[in-house]
Amino acid sequence: MEERKWKILSSEYLVKRPWLTARRDKVLLPDGRVNDEYYVLEYPSWINIIAFTTDGRLIMEHQYRHALGQTGIEIPAGVVEPGEEPLAAAKRELLEETGYEGGEWTHFMTLSANPGSFSNLSYTFLAQGVEPTGSRHLDATEDLEVILMEKTEVVKILERGEMIQALMVAPLYKAYIEGLLS
Amino acid sequence: MEERKWKILSSEYLVKRPWLTARRDKVLLPDGRVNDEYYVLEYPSWINIIAFTTDGRLIMEHQYRHALGQTGIEIPAGVVEPGEEPLAAAKRELLEETGYEGGEWTHFMTLSANPGSFSNLSYTFLAQGVEPTGSRHLDATEDLEVILMEKTEVVKILERGEMIQALMVAPLYKAYIEGLLS
Repeated sequence: MEERKWKILSSEYLVKRPWLTARRDKVLLPDGRVNDEYYVLEYPSWINIIAFTTDGRLIMEHQYRHALGQTGIEIPAGVVEPGEEPLAAAKRELLEETGYEGGEWTHFMTLSANPGSFSNLSYTFLAQGVEPTGSRHLDATEDLEVILMEKTEVVKILERGEMIQALMVAPLYKAYIEGLLS
Repeated sequence: MEERKWKILSSEYLVKRPWLTARRDKVLLPDGRVNDEYYVLEYPSWINIIAFTTDGRLIMEHQYRHALGQTGIEIPAGVVEPGEEPLAAAKRELLEETGYEGGEWTHFMTLSANPGSFSNLSYTFLAQGVEPTGSRHLDATEDLEVILMEKTEVVKILERGEMIQALMVAPLYKAYIEGLLS
């Protein structure tokens, strides 16, 4: 692919808070056009987890998502803390949100929610054989319920279009294609 | 699923520009917790298109994405204008970005980039048998190159993890599962 890197002529932070960092860049495009107002949302890396229990069920969640104003079916997910490796963050978030840990972990997929406006990437991990050995500790902004689901039920949810979080639907489809949900 | 709707106690706009609308809500959770600082990014609906030409190739794009600072492989995508239907927006964007139009169109999938922070949904349409009858008109912020790809090449790109835009990867996997890429 041709290199098209844009040049940042100036940059200003509009919001800089723990849960939202918004930046406005003035950018020069390779063809000479200048855009005075390009907005970038800076986020830390995100992780999510396709976690299978020792008896082969998936750990799913019902979580209320305020921006959309509705409760959705999701997989466990969270934010990578400063200095933390994505894998360590995934193990920590699974334990905190669901009380499950252990098993075999592998990196499964890397995605972006929206590469035009989000500065971060989202890493999906596959966890095989996790067990309920820990205790849950929810963040102040979290409002969720944990459910164990059979693989066939997750496939039905995908087929009916009932999951809408793209960062979770894409890796679940990949898992389906690779035979992990059958 | 249990109803968990959060109550907005107060709300304030921090940024209100054509390309970024950021709001801070003070919210009351069903269990009585109050969160003083929940950020919502308001966006119009988005659309993207899995478009097959009359000879069965897919219309793909190389597009520079400034937030991530890299050029990615994508499908055509855009924003629904005020008063516009998502399908009309999809047809307009395909023509503007690629010069292709016509064919048979169906709604294929509905996703969210991130239901925790984004207020909008993204609609994917399937367009079968489009033809190069129009001329391109790029927006000021667009910097992209159109490429026609064989289905087998798109499958290889998915398998190699070379596409990272989750709102596009998820519907392409769905198309793969439904036999549309073979």
